[in-house]
Amino acid sequence: MKKTILEMLRNAGGKFVSGEGIAEKLKVSRTAIWKHIQSLRKRGYTISSSERLGYKLDETPDLLLPEIIQYGLQTELIAAENRIVYKNSVDSTNELAKKLASDGAADGTIIVAEEQTGGKGRLQRNFFSPKEKGIWFSVILRPQCTPKDAPKFTLMAAVAVVKMLERFNLQAKIKWPNDILYDGRKLVGILTEMSAEIDHVNYIVVGIGINVNLRREEFPADIREIAASLSEMAGENLSRVEIFRALLEEIDKLYINYDFDEIFKLWRQYNITLGKKVTVLSAESGDIFTGQAVDIDAEGALIVDTADGRKIVYAGDVSIRDAK
Amino acid sequence: MKKTILEMLRNAGGKFVSGEGIAEKLKVSRTAIWKHIQSLRKRGYTISSSERLGYKLDETPDLLLPEIIQYGLQTELIAAENRIVYKNSVDSTNELAKKLASDGAADGTIIVAEEQTGGKGRLQRNFFSPKEKGIWFSVILRPQCTPKDAPKFTLMAAVAVVKMLERFNLQAKIKWPNDILYDGRKLVGILTEMSAEIDHVNYIVVGIGINVNLRREEFPADIREIAASLSEMAGENLSRVEIFRALLEEIDKLYINYDFDEIFKLWRQYNITLGKKVTVLSAESGDIFTGQAVDIDAEGALIVDTADGRKIVYAGDVSIRDAK
Repeated sequence: MKKTILEMLRNAGGKFVSGEGIAEKLKVSRTAIWKHIQSLRKRGYTISSSERLGYKLDETPDLLLPEIIQYGLQTELIAAENRIVYKNSVDSTNELAKKLASDGAADGTIIVAEEQTGGKGRLQRNFFSPKEKGIWFSVILRPQCTPKDAPKFTLMAAVAVVKMLERFNLQAKIKWPNDILYDGRKLVGILTEMSAEIDHVNYIVVGIGINVNLRREEFPADIREIAASLSEMAGENLSRVEIFRALLEEIDKLYINYDFDEIFKLWRQYNITLGKKVTVLSAESGDIFTGQAVDIDAEGALIVDTADGRKIVYAGDVSIRDAK
Repeated sequence: MKKTILEMLRNAGGKFVSGEGIAEKLKVSRTAIWKHIQSLRKRGYTISSSERLGYKLDETPDLLLPEIIQYGLQTELIAAENRIVYKNSVDSTNELAKKLASDGAADGTIIVAEEQTGGKGRLQRNFFSPKEKGIWFSVILRPQCTPKDAPKFTLMAAVAVVKMLERFNLQAKIKWPNDILYDGRKLVGILTEMSAEIDHVNYIVVGIGINVNLRREEFPADIREIAASLSEMAGENLSRVEIFRALLEEIDKLYINYDFDEIFKLWRQYNITLGKKVTVLSAESGDIFTGQAVDIDAEGALIVDTADGRKIVYAGDVSIRDAK
C-alpha cells in the first residue's frame, strides 16, 4: 500500500494529490493514508500536506532504498524486480552476497548497504565505508564460464564505472587491474570473488565501493593521501541515487551484451597503466620487478617487458613509476 | 570417559581388562562402566564381557568415526586433532565443507559421511553415495595460491588416490583430469571447488568419493556399465577404515611437501590419457574435436594436437578413442 501511495505522489509530478482520492482508490480511511504518509516521512521522504489540497512529494531522500533505486531504472537484469537486497548497515556486502548466492540468489541480484562495518578490500584489507557517504554494493553474476574467465568481469566492472562517470562529465582512469583513480588517488575499489568448480564458475560476486560525498578530512589519516571522492572531483555533493542508477545501467548493458573485445578496447582506452614504467609485486611468486607495461592479454593479465624478458602478471600490486 | 575406556580396551591388545580396574582408574562405579560399554556396543563395537575377566574388544566397526580414523593415523595436518567432522548422513560433504570453510574451518579439516543424500559430481551431476558402501568425504585446503593454481590440487588428489591403492596392491589409472578408472570404469570421483578472489584463493574443497564395497548389481542401472568398486577389483570386501587412513596419509604427504614437479611426474606415470587419440568436449567453447593428447601443461591443462593445430583444454570431458 505504501508503494502505491508513493507511486501516486510521484506520478503527480510535484503537484498535490487529494487524501480523499488516495483513500478512495485504496479503499481505506483517510486516517490510514495519513499513517502511511507518516511512515514515508520517517523513511526520509519530504511530503507537504494541506487540509484542503492533500499531499505533495517534495523530496525523495538520497538513500539507496530499492523503491528509490528502481524508480526509472533502465536495466533488464541487474537490480531488476526482486533483485535488490537493501541493508541500512551490514558487515560486508560481499560476504552477504556470497551467502545469498550460495543459497541460490538470481543472476543480477545486488546487495547494497548505507554503511559497511567490516568492508573488505583485496587481500583482506579493510575498506572504509561510512554511512551514506558512498555507494557500497555487490552484484551477483552467474555467467557460463570457467574460472580462467572470471578476471574479465572485474575489468568489465571497472569499465562500467568509468562509463558511468562520463555521464556526469567526470573523467577517471583505470589502473590495472581495476582501481579507479582520480589525480592518482583511489576513487573506487573493486573486489571480485568467485565460487567455482575447476572448470565451471558457480557465481561471481563483484563488490564495488565508490567514495561519493566525502571531504578529504573525512577519510582516515592512513588513506587520506591515497583516496579521492566524486564530490572532490565534481566540486559539489552529488546524488548517490543518480550515480548508482547510472552505474547499474552501465553494468547491465556490458553484462547483457557481453562483448569482451569491446570491453578490452574500452579498458585499454581508459587505462593509465599501459605504456608506463611499472613496479610489480607479484602475488604469485612474491617477486618484485620493474619493467614496461605493454598490454593485457585475453584473460586480463598484465604483460610487462623487463630486462629479464617478458613477464605475465595474473595477480599483484602495480605501481606506476613515471608520469609520462 | 568413553574415549578413555575405548583406549584401555585397545591397549589391552585383544585381552580382557577387568571392569574393576577400569572403574578404579576412572573413579566411577562398575555400573557406570557397564553403561559406557553398552553405549560403545551401540556404536558398533563388539565387546565381550565376562563376570570374572571383565571386558574385551573383539572388533572395531568399519565406520568412519573420528575416534576410529584417527587411531594410528600418521598425518601431520589432514584430519588431525579437531579436524574431522563426521556425519552419519549428509546432503553433500562438499556443500557442508564450503559452509564450514566460509566460517573459518582450519586447513586440513575433513568432512566425512557414511552416506550422502545429495552427493554431487562435476557440473551438478549426481554422485551415488550409499550408506557405508564407500568413502564419501571432502577436505578443506588453504594453500597460498592464485585461482590459476587450483587445478593442481585436483591432480594432487588423483595422485594420492592411486598411491593409496598401490599400498593395497591395486593398480588404477587416471583419466584426465582426475577420474580414477579400473577396467575403463570409474572407481573414484573427485570434485574440486574453490572460493577465491581474482588473485587469491580463500579455500579449496576437494571432494572425493570412492566406491569401496559395492557389487556390480548394487549400482543404479544408469551407471552400472561405467562404475567400478574396490571390492570388485580386489575380489573381496575391504576395510573402509584402512583405505581411508591410507588415503589421508597420502594426501597429507603430498600436500605438506607440496612439490608439483613430483606430482606432475606421478600424474604422468599413472595417467591413461596421454599418447592416446581422444575426443574432447570443451567446457569453455562447447566445441567437440578429436586429436592426440600429448601432455599436460604447468597448470594441468591438457594439450591436444588436432588437424587444426594444437589446442589447450582447461576444462571439459575427454573420451579415449583407442585402447593402445
